[in-house]
Order: sequence, then structure tokens, then C-alpha cells
Amino acid sequence: MRALRFTDWKTKPTLQDVDRPTPGPGEVLLKVAGAGACHSDVAAYDDFEAATAPKGMTPPFTLGHETSGWAEELGEGVTGIALGEAFLVYGPIGCGRCVPCSKGQDTYCERVAEMPYLATGLGRDGGMAEYVTVPARNLVPLGDADPVAAAPLADAALTPYHAISLALPVLAKGGSTALVIGLGGLGQIAVQILTALTGATVYVTDRKQDAVDRAVARGAIAIDASGDQAAQLREATGGTGVDAVFDLVGATPTIQLGQAVLARGGRLSVVGIAGGEVSWSFFTNPYEAVITNTYWGSIADLHEVVAMYQRGQIVPDVERFSLEDAPEAYRRLEEGTLDARAVIVPHAG
Amino acid sequence: MRALRFTDWKTKPTLQDVDRPTPGPGEVLLKVAGAGACHSDVAAYDDFEAATAPKGMTPPFTLGHETSGWAEELGEGVTGIALGEAFLVYGPIGCGRCVPCSKGQDTYCERVAEMPYLATGLGRDGGMAEYVTVPARNLVPLGDADPVAAAPLADAALTPYHAISLALPVLAKGGSTALVIGLGGLGQIAVQILTALTGATVYVTDRKQDAVDRAVARGAIAIDASGDQAAQLREATGGTGVDAVFDLVGATPTIQLGQAVLARGGRLSVVGIAGGEVSWSFFTNPYEAVITNTYWGSIADLHEVVAMYQRGQIVPDVERFSLEDAPEAYRRLEEGTLDARAVIVPHAG
Amino acid sequence: MRALRFTDWKTKPTLQDVDRPTPGPGEVLLKVAGAGACHSDVAAYDDFEAATAPKGMTPPFTLGHETSGWAEELGEGVTGIALGEAFLVYGPIGCGRCVPCSKGQDTYCERVAEMPYLATGLGRDGGMAEYVTVPARNLVPLGDADPVAAAPLADAALTPYHAISLALPVLAKGGSTALVIGLGGLGQIAVQILTALTGATVYVTDRKQDAVDRAVARGAIAIDASGDQAAQLREATGGTGVDAVFDLVGATPTIQLGQAVLARGGRLSVVGIAGGEVSWSFFTNPYEAVITNTYWGSIADLHEVVAMYQRGQIVPDVERFSLEDAPEAYRRLEEGTLDARAVIVPHAG
Amino acid sequence: MRALRFTDWKTKPTLQDVDRPTPGPGEVLLKVAGAGACHSDVAAYDDFEAATAPKGMTPPFTLGHETSGWAEELGEGVTGIALGEAFLVYGPIGCGRCVPCSKGQDTYCERVAEMPYLATGLGRDGGMAEYVTVPARNLVPLGDADPVAAAPLADAALTPYHAISLALPVLAKGGSTALVIGLGGLGQIAVQILTALTGATVYVTDRKQDAVDRAVARGAIAIDASGDQAAQLREATGGTGVDAVFDLVGATPTIQLGQAVLARGGRLSVVGIAGGEVSWSFFTNPYEAVITNTYWGSIADLHEVVAMYQRGQIVPDVERFSLEDAPEAYRRLEEGTLDARAVIVPHAG
Repeated sequence: MRALRFTDWKTKPTLQDVDRPTPGPGEVLLKVAGAGACHSDVAAYDDFEAATAPKGMTPPFTLGHETSGWAEELGEGVTGIALGEAFLVYGPIGCGRCVPCSKGQDTYCERVAEMPYLATGLGRDGGMAEYVTVPARNLVPLGDADPVAAAPLADAALTPYHAISLALPVLAKGGSTALVIGLGGLGQIAVQILTALTGATVYVTDRKQDAVDRAVARGAIAIDASGDQAAQLREATGGTGVDAVFDLVGATPTIQLGQAVLARGGRLSVVGIAGGEVSWSFFTNPYEAVITNTYWGSIADLHEVVAMYQRGQIVPDVERFSLEDAPEAYRRLEEGTLDARAVIVPHAG
Repeated sequence: MRALRFTDWKTKPTLQDVDRPTPGPGEVLLKVAGAGACHSDVAAYDDFEAATAPKGMTPPFTLGHETSGWAEELGEGVTGIALGEAFLVYGPIGCGRCVPCSKGQDTYCERVAEMPYLATGLGRDGGMAEYVTVPARNLVPLGDADPVAAAPLADAALTPYHAISLALPVLAKGGSTALVIGLGGLGQIAVQILTALTGATVYVTDRKQDAVDRAVARGAIAIDASGDQAAQLREATGGTGVDAVFDLVGATPTIQLGQAVLARGGRLSVVGIAGGEVSWSFFTNPYEAVITNTYWGSIADLHEVVAMYQRGQIVPDVERFSLEDAPEAYRRLEEGTLDARAVIVPHAG
Repeated sequence: MRALRFTDWKTKPTLQDVDRPTPGPGEVLLKVAGAGACHSDVAAYDDFEAATAPKGMTPPFTLGHETSGWAEELGEGVTGIALGEAFLVYGPIGCGRCVPCSKGQDTYCERVAEMPYLATGLGRDGGMAEYVTVPARNLVPLGDADPVAAAPLADAALTPYHAISLALPVLAKGGSTALVIGLGGLGQIAVQILTALTGATVYVTDRKQDAVDRAVARGAIAIDASGDQAAQLREATGGTGVDAVFDLVGATPTIQLGQAVLARGGRLSVVGIAGGEVSWSFFTNPYEAVITNTYWGSIADLHEVVAMYQRGQIVPDVERFSLEDAPEAYRRLEEGTLDARAVIVPHAG
Repeated sequence: MRALRFTDWKTKPTLQDVDRPTPGPGEVLLKVAGAGACHSDVAAYDDFEAATAPKGMTPPFTLGHETSGWAEELGEGVTGIALGEAFLVYGPIGCGRCVPCSKGQDTYCERVAEMPYLATGLGRDGGMAEYVTVPARNLVPLGDADPVAAAPLADAALTPYHAISLALPVLAKGGSTALVIGLGGLGQIAVQILTALTGATVYVTDRKQDAVDRAVARGAIAIDASGDQAAQLREATGGTGVDAVFDLVGATPTIQLGQAVLARGGRLSVVGIAGGEVSWSFFTNPYEAVITNTYWGSIADLHEVVAMYQRGQIVPDVERFSLEDAPEAYRRLEEGTLDARAVIVPHAG
């Protein structure tokens, strides 16, 4: 079968012929419906070397950690799955036995250093192929919902969903306010999740006007990125500040903006991995406001994301590419000319 | 000034001339903007006698526990309030010193048996008059929002808001479901609050078709009250049941419906005071589902209700009456011919 | 190898020679350290028939759902476990893929009706044998702690731990109060958990004086079971009632006692399965008090139980029996002449 | 009567004769039982000037924001208080009407800038006098507990109690861990609160060996302050880090220690006001760990503190001084030669 392979550090991914995999005990072979192309793939093949890469991401492997598909073959011991049933794939795969893994939060596996790979598509062969095997435990049923557009939910929706779900207690009241910084794929979905799950007024900021326009069409209120954003937000909130800030960029200025506008008791969640550093002190932090970070999400979160997708509360912006055009999709992702998440569709409809 | 007085047990309220009150230390005199007529007023003057009435509701007093108005005069020690500023009145008045009162939850005052009245308009002179005095602590600023339509928020919105806010943890996820039983004034607002603050699918049931239609127009999904409602809800939720049920009736059959459709870990909140009794056992209660009751709300809740009103997330259905027509408003409330909350407006616009 | 087998409905378990099992993919063979004898085993072989038994408990199978042991052999795909390492076994085994299973709460598996057994020792061969196989995911490391005395933790501690952990929010304050009804194995451990994890004053009641004495020695305060217990508790709590009640019996009078003493906002958790029915109404339930039930616990809970055991915060009362004496242990359990949890120790120290 | 007055910026407090105050409407006159001397008093009279002082602390006023006493005279409208009844005083006094004040959290009053003083003893005349007036709402009943030793609870216990209560969710499990940095008066009580309310292993660190010894006698485990404390804590927690850190110093190195040892999902609460600055970044913060600050506490918190004191769970270390010796008590506080909280006792027993 054809697969888009990341073959060596600092090397662009290429299409290759590989054997169709066989599901092991407890695994399922999926016929791939869609596989989303993500910036972290680009980081994997462009930025790292053996010495600097996170453990468990060593090439070669097939890309694709946002994958959906139809059950094609069941491994030993797998029951209760009908062939042809559509699933979304929870990517992370931990040891399965530590406390976080026992809760379906493999992202925080305590034995990550001993694991051979991080996730399906990140170390383990992923979804940019005609077929992929995944542990049955990592499958979330899609029911009748379109599996192709669902693919990006596995990361681009799961990541903001998890961050937002942890912040829901500070938003769970009349009159709450939220701020989303950065309106790429994750940010657009963050706006949809906040609008659906809370009554918060959702403020947004991004340098790209079309991204702002799309968020505004989804119910958000734009802050003028060329002006004093903190001042605008203080004024818009009657001086009290914002209850929950989601920084999907994570650069020093964006985290600082979050700190500057946080309400007493508010929550600043840094999700973006730009790695910015900021200063913190007792006298500048609003009382009982917290600053934190989050990473990806849990299996249960992904079930909830799918429920929102099935109800039309999350509608990812996607652009479809054939598997043969996957290198082109990544090229456009690299150069920033995609307006939506590229989803690779290996099998023609 | 004119006031609608409840003068004796089992006696209809009448309009009388009384002295305009003077605000005591810590109190504010309000020029009344609106005062909502509530079923519990009817219960007070129709159902009770000295022997059966709750303590603290002894006539004579002026009715009206859903009151809004403009600051007209400040009592000793009150600062920071501008004359003419519009407020909604938090009705309950407890001892002010016990733990619940210290949290602004006077509804659960530990010294209720020692208090001379339950609330403004329930024992203490209420808002069905040209003027009313209230403790400054009980005033919630309305800003620029219409104070007349705001009046019913003090009970008809505060009560469901409080019940819903306690249930938000079970609704705070993608794919959640809620059921509102009873679509009178409180039920209509419950639908609005649930729709605004959660992503839940909101099911509703009521015997009156027009009430159901209004709730459906607000985004709810109707259950056919003439069919097997539990079966419909089980099917609609894929067999898992409903996460949060709000029973605004509280009769035996409505509580039983709630029990029958509750999901594992769900929450059944009985708010209506029809006094129904039901049976409970380990083997019929879905694991970790809870059944509980709630009563009115807190001062902080009312601030949050007002924030939702200011944003247009809560829009009470109201019908305006002059103070002279207040007896007529109550007559129509008694006979069930009101389509909306009657709000008494003592001062012509 | 020798095993204590439940061979048919309404038949006492007997020792038999069976083949030593082989671990399948993802499983581990344990050399059994200890296996606790539980009342629910007696119910399984004495009370049920094919028509009345819960699904998934059909004989024949080896008893023992409270099991500890040492890793003896690893099935295919199991890594990171050293032979000889000691583990406690999480008994429940669900589908592994539904939302509760994804959180390690197999007790609430959504596909329980499709599963061939409920748990290790309940349908699937359990720990009353020289060896047992269990999925690697169900193993909780014991470190250096005594594995024999640990065995009962898998149910007799996990069950009250789970119920208590859900009640911790109502106990998480200075001045809180708890009541434990029923001081058998689970009740004694409930007292230890409450004493360790909360600052609550822990009241207890049981008909057996020696059980009460043991709980009092563990820091509890006894209520006189021959007097008016509700009155005593109301007085002891200054009239406010008890924040959290744990009913480990579950008969109508014990649940009613819980209802009678509950504080406003309190939580009554029925854990015992005597199946009592009670009446519930708006006017008798203290405002915002909840009544609920719980069943067993999660994998993460069991890790936390083990941490308490390692710190000496939970010390189960156990009496050791050889595997040959297992029938005698069950006989004494049936007649009520055990003072502690019987733990079967198949391999002589 | 005699009172210890702070008369001007940068001036030591002096004993003066002043008129015995009269309680206004809603106020109570207390005959003072005890008044604790706090470092923040020293900061008030030694460090500030008109230009740098927090608003609302302008001299002259009587010191003493940790006050207990007996009701001596009731102001207009105060009911339900018996003369001679003993109370602890909640110090902060906000507007009474904003959301935080409505919840009894006057520390976060939204109109603080308009208030004439911060608290009883901080701007308003405090407890270092024979008599003091306080709003009835600010009185917490002490029952039969010793009112003199209770005085410091109003700050030295309330402040750590509030910080700990917000952290209880991360400590509410078997196997949790806490770290208290700084073992002065607040730190000693923090250890007592953590030991009473949680099952956490409580680590402590301080430069003073006798303070460490006292905490160890209260059940804490000492970290060697002369060694690599972060390394010790990582080892003691099996590499996972500490769930909740309470930094009662707040200097850069103590906050950094907290950051270095925090567990994934942990909570670092900075309570001490040394004003240290630290750096924060996505890649150094353990996932979902939060850093925050807290200030004093709420009225409900103080009720809960008193409940712990009545049960013997909090035992403040106090040294008693007569009112005439109050200047000497402050002198010893300034020079660091007190081993316990100085409590001024104006009326000889």
C-alpha cells in the first residue's frame, strides 16, 4: 500500500510502497478515511535531529496523528466492533498501566521514557496511508458523522477541548468572559467549543484579519491587534478582566497579554508551544488567578469532542487532498497558504 | 402612597394608602420600577392560616418579592449609591451573621426561626407599592438594562439559575443532556439559562402546548407528554439517560419521570414544591446519580442572573399592569389566564 | 494446581485440581500471595440461580476477587514488569473501550451485557488458587508492602474509598462530620480512610459492640445503637446534622437514619446492598442534600488505596488461612464467627 | 480607656488614653479578650509613608487586626447576641455590596479604593485596646473555647486556611504530598491544618532549626535546608514531585523551590509577601500545574478555623502580654526574639 513516510531527520516526507500492516492482539486495522496534516509533523521532519528530538519520535515511520477510518480487520481478542464501522483515533499510546494511562490520559504516561513511540503518527506508523493499525482502546466511534472532516478533531479539537474543559469551572456562571489568542486551526475550534459549552463572551485576537473574521462569524468579539489589547480588554470587561485566557501561541508577548488581562481568580492556559518566558510575582498576579499549561487530551475528552461534532457544535475547516498530493499539502502548510486543515483522503470516495 | 396589602389569612390582597417608608441605617428607599406577581403570593393569601403558615409571613404586609427600582433616598451609613441608579432586589433577608448569610445565601439562614420575616414581600413590606425600603446589601445594580422586565428575575430566574448552577459540573462536557419538566415562568427561563450556559441538548415537557412551543423556539426539544416520556428520553439519549433533570413541578409523577430517565452520575433537582413523594432504592438509582432539592438562590447568583439579562441571554416573558390593576393581575394569575409574568408598574412611564 | 472452585448454582465451593493457566497477550500470570473471602462470594454460591444471577457470574469458575500476588510469567506484549514484583489486582474487567473503561472505571462498563464475566473471581477465574492470570492493566504495584494483608484492599478498601472520595468535597473543611453505619470489614476501613483523609468527626454505629470498640480505637465516636440515634447525632452536631453519611448496610432503617441526620448540603452514600427502600420528598430532604449509591471503584482509586496502605493509614484486619482451609474460612464467614477478613494464602511462607 | 495607637508614618505605636467607643447601628462593642501582634503591623508603622502606603491604612488608629472579645454592648438593630458571649473578629471590612463582599470575602472588595479603611486594626481602630467596635456580621462565635489564645486565628490561621482550602482538591486522595516553606506563626498553623484536613505527607523547610523541630513534632517531615532541597523532595516523592506547595515566605528562591518540586497537576500557592519574582515557561512548568497567590480569607473560612480550634486541631503558639507591655511585645517581634505569637490581653484574668 502507499504511505507518506518520514524517513530521516531533516528530510521531507515521501510517498512509498509499504506492506499493509496486520493488527496484533487487541488491535484493529483501519481503512483510513482521513488524516490531518499538523504543524507538529513539520517540526518533526524539519527541526529535530537525533540529539534534540523528543524520545519516541525516531524515523522512519508513517506520518498522521489525526486519523479516522473504518474497521477492516480485528486483531486477536477484539470483540464488539463491526467491520465497516467508522472511528476516530486517539493518537497517544502510553504504557497502559500507570495512573494517567489508567484514566485514558496517555499523554501523561509515567513510563514515557520507556515507550517505543509517543503516538500513532508520532513514532508509530500513522494515518497517512491506505491502512493503519491502532489499539482497539484508542478508537472512538463516529456513528453516522462524516469521518473525513472528523480527522482533525483528534488533535486540533482535542487539544483546545482539554484546555477548555479544565477551565470550565471559572466560566460556569452568568457574565463570564474568555479570550482566545491565536486563531489557526486550534483557535477556530476553541471559539466554537467556548461558544457551545459556556455563556462566556469570547474575545479573540490574531494578526490575520481573515482568521479574525471567521472567529467573529462564529460569535466572537475581535480585539484590535494593532492597538493596546490589554487596555481594550480591561475596558470591555468593566475593569474586572478576563476569566479564562487560552493562549494558542505561547510566545512571550502573548502570555504577557494573558497575564495583563486576567481577572481575579481567572485562569491562563498556555497551549501553544512557542516557548515564551514570562515573569511572575505575587504583586502582579491578580489574587487567586492561576497560570498553567496543558497538552493534548484524554480518551474521554475525545468521546466528548465527537459528541460535539455529531451535534454540529464543532465544524472543522478542512481542505481535502489525495494521498498522492500529501507532499503538496505539507508544502502549502509550510508556506502558510492553507486556509483550512489539510486532510489526506487515501481512498477516493 | 398606594400599596397592595395582604391584610389577613385567607383574604385577597387590596390596595390601600400607607405612609411612604423611611430607610433605616444601612437601607435604601427605592422608587419601584416593577414588581412581579408570583404563585407563592397566592399560596400566602389563599392557602395558609396562622397555624399552618411558614414563620415570618404573618400579615399584614405589602406583597412583592420580585422587585426592581431606582434609588430615591439613602439611609444612614449607605455610601457609593447614586440617586436614580437602578437596582434589582435580592428578596431574602436572614440574620446576616450565620455561615449561609455570610455567603449571601440568606435563604438558608440558620436563625430563620428568630427572624421577623422571610424576605422583602414575604413578611416584610414588598415591592407592590410606589416605594419600598431594602438593605443596601440586597441591591444588585442593573446598569442600563430595562428595570421593569427585570423584576421577575429576582425569583423566576434566580431559582432555576441556582439549581442549574449546582448542576453545571454534570453538564460541563460535550454531549451532555438536560430535561426541564414544567414550562411556566421558571421553566421558560431554565431553558434559556441551560441553552446559554451549557452545550447540553435540552429536552422539555409540559401539558400546555403553547408553553412547549415557546421552549422549542428557544432551542429545546419537546418530549410528547401524551406518550411514554421515559421511553422517548431513553431512546433520544441512546439509552444512557439524561445528565441533569430539573423538575419545576415536584409532583410524584414528575419526580418519578426524573428518576426513570436519569443517567449514571446524573443529577435530579426538584425545584417545584408540589410536595410529591417517591421511592428510592440502591437497585433502581443509577450508580452515582443524585437526587436533591434547591430553594431560591444567593446574592452572587443574582448578580450573575443580571449579567445574563444584560447580555440578552435571559429574556423574561412579562405583561405589565398598573398598580391599580394589581388585583386584576392576581385574579388572572389565579385563574391561569396569564401568558407571561405579570409585572406591576406603579409609576407610569 | 489447586483452586477453590464454584462449580454450580446453590453449591458450596470445593477444592479441585486444575491446570495452571497461561497468560494470554497483554496478561500476566501471578503466583498468588493472598485472596480475600468476601460476602458477595457467599451470595454467588448460596443465593443465585441461572435465572436470578447477574450476567457474567455463571459457574464454574475459581473464586477470589480480592487478590494479590507476584509476577510469575508475562504474556505477549507485556513489558516493564519484573518477575517477582508484587501487585494487587483490580478485579473488574470491562470492554476497555467505552468511556467508563477508558477512565479505568470498568465497574460501569457500558458493554457489561456483552462481557463474558464481571471480574477476576466473579465469572473469570480468581485468586483462590496457586496461580491466576490478569490483564497487565489491572495490576497495581505494591512495592515493599506486605502483599498478603493487602489482598482485601481490592474490594473491602476500594469500595469505601471510592464512596468517600466522591464525598470529599462536602468534608473538605474545618468542622465537618461523617457517619459510618455498619462496621464490618468495609466499615472499619471506611473509618480509617475518613480519619486519614479528612478532619471530620467520625460517628459510627453498629449492633456489635466489639466492632464499635474497634472503630472507637481508630478514632471514631460511637452512637448508642439502642437509643434514638438520630436524636443523638442531631445533638452531637449542634442541630446541623451530618455532612456525609456512608451506609454500608443499605437496609431501609439504616438509609432512613442517614436521611434523618443529613445536614443541609450533605451527602448520603448507600454502599451496602441490602436493598432497602425509602421515601423521598422535597419537604423532608434538607436543602441541597443528596442521596446516592456507589459500586466498587476505579484503577486510579486502587493506586491511591495502596498508597494509604503503604503509609500505614489503612491497616486491614485479616486472618490467614491455607488454601486447603479455604472451605473452612467460608464456613466461618457464613456463620459470622470471623473477627477479621479471611485471606487465603496458597503458598506457605 | 487605654489603647495602643499608631499615630503617624514611621513612628512606633504608643499607649494613649482614648474614649471608649460606642457601637453604631449594626455594630457590637467588644470587651477585648486578646489581640495578636502581627508583622504587618510593623510594616505599617516602620515601612510606609503617605505616598507608598496601601490606601485605607492612614494613621492615627489603634492597632490589632487579630482580635477576640466578649459582647459588651449592642448597637441599633443588632439582635441574637448575648452580652458576655465570646467572639473572634473577622478583620476585613469591604463595601458589603459587591460580589466578593456578598460572599463574605471582603478581602477582595471591588470598591476597596472608596473604603475609608481596610480592616479593623488596619485603618479602623483595632483590638489593642480595652474595647473595640466591630460590625455584627464580622463576629464569629467562639463558644466555650479560650478566647485569648484564639486571637491569632483571625489572621495567622485564616490566611493559611484559605490558601489550603483552595488546594484541597489536589490533596484529596490517598498518597498526596504537601510542602510548607517557612515555619513562622502561619507556617506552624499550616502544618496543623494540613495534618488535620488531609492525608498528605507534609514536608517542611525553614532556616530555624527550632521551628523545624516544632513542625516535626506536629507530624511533618523535615527537608534539610542546607542541602539540595529540590533533589530531596524529588527523591522523597519517588520522582513525581509535590502536589501542593505553600510558600509562606514568597522570596524568589522559595518560589523557585516550589516550582522545581511541583508535581504534574500540582498547585503552588504563594502566601508570603516578600515579593520575589520568578520566571515561568511552558517547558518548565509541569503539565497542568498551577501557580497562584492568595490573601487572607473569608468569613465562612473563619467559622471553619474556629471549628478546628474548638476540636483541638489548631493550637496556636501564643505568649501573653498585658496592654501596658504591648510596646515591648512589638519590640521583641521586631528583633525576632518571640517564639510564639504575642497576644495582648488588656483585661487581667
